[in-house]
Amino acid sequence: MQRYFVEPEAMTEDTVTITGDDVKHIVRVMRMKEGDEIICSDNNSKTVRCTLQLLGEEQVTAKIVEILHPHTELPISVTIAQGLPKGDKLDFIIQKGTELGATSFVPFSASRSVVKWEEKKARKKIERLEKIAKEAAEQSYRERIPTIQPAMTFSSLVEQVSSFSSCLVAYEESGKSGERSQLVQCLRNLKVGDSLLIVIGPEGGLTEQEIEQLEEAGAKLAGFGPRILRTETASLYVLSTVSYHFELMG
Amino acid sequence: MQRYFVEPEAMTEDTVTITGDDVKHIVRVMRMKEGDEIICSDNNSKTVRCTLQLLGEEQVTAKIVEILHPHTELPISVTIAQGLPKGDKLDFIIQKGTELGATSFVPFSASRSVVKWEEKKARKKIERLEKIAKEAAEQSYRERIPTIQPAMTFSSLVEQVSSFSSCLVAYEESGKSGERSQLVQCLRNLKVGDSLLIVIGPEGGLTEQEIEQLEEAGAKLAGFGPRILRTETASLYVLSTVSYHFELMG
Repeated sequence: MQRYFVEPEAMTEDTVTITGDDVKHIVRVMRMKEGDEIICSDNNSKTVRCTLQLLGEEQVTAKIVEILHPHTELPISVTIAQGLPKGDKLDFIIQKGTELGATSFVPFSASRSVVKWEEKKARKKIERLEKIAKEAAEQSYRERIPTIQPAMTFSSLVEQVSSFSSCLVAYEESGKSGERSQLVQCLRNLKVGDSLLIVIGPEGGLTEQEIEQLEEAGAKLAGFGPRILRTETASLYVLSTVSYHFELMG
Repeated sequence: MQRYFVEPEAMTEDTVTITGDDVKHIVRVMRMKEGDEIICSDNNSKTVRCTLQLLGEEQVTAKIVEILHPHTELPISVTIAQGLPKGDKLDFIIQKGTELGATSFVPFSASRSVVKWEEKKARKKIERLEKIAKEAAEQSYRERIPTIQPAMTFSSLVEQVSSFSSCLVAYEESGKSGERSQLVQCLRNLKVGDSLLIVIGPEGGLTEQEIEQLEEAGAKLAGFGPRILRTETASLYVLSTVSYHFELMG
C-alpha cells in the first residue's frame, strides 16, 4: 500500500489532509480514486491506514480507519557523520542509509574532502537530500524521515561527540591494532533509546590529526571487517549490523 | 599500495609477470617506475608484495619481496542469487557485494523480473560484470575475485539449493510470521568453511509459488529487519551481518 508522510497538524483524530506534491502523486501518478486506501505517518509516532474521501487539485482528504503500529524504527538512534564524498555518493548514502534505519545524517568537511559545500547552494542541496530521504522513508515503511543537517566544520563535529551515548570512528587500520571487536563491544553496551554517532571519512580517509581529535572527544576507533570498504559502503555496514544486533538477535 | 590480480601461472617462486590491461594501468595511469612496490594476488591463496623490475609495453615483471597473509576472505562462502533487477542495479550489487566479501553471484530470471537476460549479449555482459568484480576486489583488498555465473532459470536455481550448507530466502513478510531470527539461527549453525546461498527476488519480489519451490528444496525464509529493503540493498545487509557475526563477534 502507498505511504505518505504528512505534518502532525494535518492529522486529526479521524481525518488526514494531504497537501503539496503528494496530491499530484495520489491523483495523477497513482490515479487513485475515492475509497482507495493509503497509509499516512505524521513523522512523529502516529501511523494510520485511511481511505480517500475528497480528491481535489490542491488537497486530498482521507478518513482514518485503523491506527497502525509498524515498529520499523531502529531501537537505538544512529547518526551518520559523513565526510563530504565526491559526486552523487551523498545521495546514495542517504537513500540506502534511510532504508537501513538511520535517524540523522551530518555531512562534514574533512581535510581530505575534495568536494566543498557551497553555502550559496546549501539550501537547495539540503532540500534535494531531504526529498531523497522522504521517498526512501516512504518506500521502506519508516515511521520517521531522517533529518539532514547542513554540512558542518570538523571542529563543530568534534563538539557534538559528547552529546551522543557513544561515538565510533570507521577506521580501516583497526584490524591490525586489535580494535576489530570495538563495534561489537559498543553495541553490547548500548540500550534501547541510546544514541550512536558514526564518523566516516571521505574517500581519502580521515587524517591522523582528525582521528586524534575525535578520540580526545571520547570517540572510539572501530574496524568494520578486514576488507577496505569504500566511503559510501561503511555506513551501510554499520546500520545493517545495528539492525542485526538489536532487531534480529535481541 | 596498488593491488593487482594475476593468473596463478604468472606467479613463480620469486617473480610476478603482469600482462593485459593492468600493464597500461601500472605504466600509463599510475605512472609507476622501476623499484615501486605493488601487491599481487594469484586469485587463489597467494598474495605477495613485490617491486617492479622491467616495465614494457606488453608486460611488467616484478620481484617478490614478501609473502602476505591478508585474511580478507569471509570465513564462510556466501553466494548471492539475485532475481534480475532493473537498470544498472546488478552492477551496483556486484560492486558492493564484492567489497563486502561475497564469493559468487548468480543472477536468475524470476517470474517478476522485468528485465530479460539476452543470450546474444550474455558473454559481453558477464565480461563487464567480471571487470566490476575484479576492480572492487582489488580496491577492497580481497584475496579472490568473486565468480559471476550467467543468468540461470528459476528451476536451475532450485536444483542448486541442496549443494549449499544452508539457503536463506529474503522474505519481507517474515517479520509477521516469527521468522525474524532465522538469519541469526542460520549463522549460529554455520561453521568456518560452510557455504550459504542467499536468494533475493527482483523489484516485485518472489511469487508465492517460487517461495514454495525454494522451501521444498530446503531453503528457509528469513527477514532482514522490519523495514522494506529495496532488492539491491538486501544482499548488502546479509553480507554485513555475516562479517559482523563471523569476523567481529567470532
